[in-house]
Amino acid sequence: MNIGSINVVRTKKPLVHAITNYVTVNDCANILLATGASPVMADDPREVQDIQRISQSLVINIGTLNERTIESMILAGKAANALGHPVILDPVGVGASGLRTETGKRIVEEVQCAVIRGNISEIKGLVSGNSLTHGVDAADIDLVNPENMKAAAEFAKAYSKQTGAVIVISGPIDIIADADKAYAIHNGHSMMGRVTGTGCQLTALLGAFVGAQPEQPWEAAIGAVATMGISGELAHKRLSILDGNVSYRNYIIDAVYHMDDDTMNNHLRGEEISQ
Amino acid sequence: MNIGSINVVRTKKPLVHAITNYVTVNDCANILLATGASPVMADDPREVQDIQRISQSLVINIGTLNERTIESMILAGKAANALGHPVILDPVGVGASGLRTETGKRIVEEVQCAVIRGNISEIKGLVSGNSLTHGVDAADIDLVNPENMKAAAEFAKAYSKQTGAVIVISGPIDIIADADKAYAIHNGHSMMGRVTGTGCQLTALLGAFVGAQPEQPWEAAIGAVATMGISGELAHKRLSILDGNVSYRNYIIDAVYHMDDDTMNNHLRGEEISQ
Amino acid sequence: MNIGSINVVRTKKPLVHAITNYVTVNDCANILLATGASPVMADDPREVQDIQRISQSLVINIGTLNERTIESMILAGKAANALGHPVILDPVGVGASGLRTETGKRIVEEVQCAVIRGNISEIKGLVSGNSLTHGVDAADIDLVNPENMKAAAEFAKAYSKQTGAVIVISGPIDIIADADKAYAIHNGHSMMGRVTGTGCQLTALLGAFVGAQPEQPWEAAIGAVATMGISGELAHKRLSILDGNVSYRNYIIDAVYHMDDDTMNNHLRGEEISQ
Repeated sequence: MNIGSINVVRTKKPLVHAITNYVTVNDCANILLATGASPVMADDPREVQDIQRISQSLVINIGTLNERTIESMILAGKAANALGHPVILDPVGVGASGLRTETGKRIVEEVQCAVIRGNISEIKGLVSGNSLTHGVDAADIDLVNPENMKAAAEFAKAYSKQTGAVIVISGPIDIIADADKAYAIHNGHSMMGRVTGTGCQLTALLGAFVGAQPEQPWEAAIGAVATMGISGELAHKRLSILDGNVSYRNYIIDAVYHMDDDTMNNHLRGEEISQ
Repeated sequence: MNIGSINVVRTKKPLVHAITNYVTVNDCANILLATGASPVMADDPREVQDIQRISQSLVINIGTLNERTIESMILAGKAANALGHPVILDPVGVGASGLRTETGKRIVEEVQCAVIRGNISEIKGLVSGNSLTHGVDAADIDLVNPENMKAAAEFAKAYSKQTGAVIVISGPIDIIADADKAYAIHNGHSMMGRVTGTGCQLTALLGAFVGAQPEQPWEAAIGAVATMGISGELAHKRLSILDGNVSYRNYIIDAVYHMDDDTMNNHLRGEEISQ
Repeated sequence: MNIGSINVVRTKKPLVHAITNYVTVNDCANILLATGASPVMADDPREVQDIQRISQSLVINIGTLNERTIESMILAGKAANALGHPVILDPVGVGASGLRTETGKRIVEEVQCAVIRGNISEIKGLVSGNSLTHGVDAADIDLVNPENMKAAAEFAKAYSKQTGAVIVISGPIDIIADADKAYAIHNGHSMMGRVTGTGCQLTALLGAFVGAQPEQPWEAAIGAVATMGISGELAHKRLSILDGNVSYRNYIIDAVYHMDDDTMNNHLRGEEISQ
């Protein structure tokens, strides 16, 4: 199996249109540039269709959604569908408010997503409509671990079958599933949870990888998840005794800047999950 | 006297709901994560009550206020009051525009704040309704110094009596006052004024500290102010000859990441101000 | 010829009012502070006139424009004109959407700009109303190089004559033109294109330089462009083998923090372009 290639991202340089939250948007733009992709952030309803037309993919992140941007997400998503561009959805905080849960579900209904990425609580919130998250973090009880990994994979495959989207569940073990198969990635570092927006950044990477390899969304998604996890590991090795979470944020994106397929394949700790 | 404990913040891991400006929001999120707290930014009127329900405190920062977010600030503030959650107000730029002055005063009237933090010009603007600030910085003439410190403390105590909130006045000397007593902190470094949002970051820290120790808002506020000032000093020692204000920003948050009660107590230069 | 002086910026400490995009706003604030200027971001229509009154210049950046902020840009621009404050326009992504092209053209018509800064595709989009950009980056075919430099200079001079604004075209070679003369700067580094918002940051610098030296907008603009390019070079020399684009962002702003007129004059590679 070939996982998605960052070398292909660097060659194709996809333009990724992101409608995303204002908390982590700068990091999302820089991590896209680190891969060789280009970011364009545009969220006014009167321009998102124009912008989508010149882009290769769409990232929808509901982290700081509001009335205006929700309308833009739907309009841009439908435009991307009409153009055949992959749509990546990050249902940030679904389960934490009625508005988020409704909006997340509405997007999944009205827009054909290529990938949906969230933590386990968010994905469960999308499915059930009533999970309560700890803000934008997953509830500890829900985290994927070696014991519940197969069950999580089956859950993700079922939701992929229902939605037609590749499902990415982020956590200590990451699950990447389509309707038929699931892959687990064991890379990453727990300190990534102390940096705001590592999830959003991964979603941005998915925009770059799937934008560059739209015919193979599952493989591309695995490549994006591997890039993020391995970059988190390499960046952690760089930390000096005085470095904290902000230097770590910088080093993670720096590591993406230097990532290539060889480094990815050398560091990947992943496996297909058998039923 | 025991000042607020960062160790308690790390144990309790409060979820801090912030309605804040888009200039410094990323740094606010990362400094909260540096303390062990979790940030959640949500500013749509249709969800702020839901989000406040799962949070332990509310930070209102009017740095880039607009019609929609002002409504959200009031709704979230009233929800926090009903739930008994502490509300921290940062009246950024009050005095610089009519809208800011009106909004600051309106929040203080309609929402019971646990802490109000600003520079001296902003706090005077709240009291008088007509101070003119140099943008979002304090006018030099107003800065607290050893000569006017007692007068500033009396001013802060009087405003605390009027509002029921702990008053934090930031500057070369920081004043933390409730209706009965005032504390001065001499930590910090003048270069912090060359980093955008160190005030906003302190306000975020107040959300974490008071969220974790809501019964002792004065002590908790002292702990937050000490954390910021001491982190500014430790970060300054780390600066290499080529480092400027952005590396300094990174190092300050990194220093918060490594802060503990022992370090705080060893570096604190504070005193209760007698009348 | 004397180019704009950063020492003067440090002395005059202009307050720069910016209505800018939420992607790069934090970097814009920090680069302004790095020069000794102060930033104030305010974009509600009900306060932009008040804020402009206490400021020395206005930066309008349409990177994430929306209905509310477009209104604010026009109101603030007219207020700046009435007060005699220089207005700097960054027409981000003009040509990429109808909304951006219309808005860019509308601002140029309704507000007298002191400086308009963009990449060649954006400036062409303003002139013609139909250039199609690669998102927010210039099309490769359009980039200014030694062969087309004179033609680009004539184009910029003509547009300056038409608009009354100094025209800054950013690229591998930067062009700074008024109606009568044009200057080329060869400083900078190609890796700056891998950092989000180096263009926005330059626009912010223009707000500081022209705000401090409003009588000499062409010279001031040359100083701002030189500061950015030279900082990009000095920052690049600082990169370690593991540093990537985010560390580079940090180092660029750090370099601005340490910039002075002597360093600028020693590193400047510029020339007036003869007809």
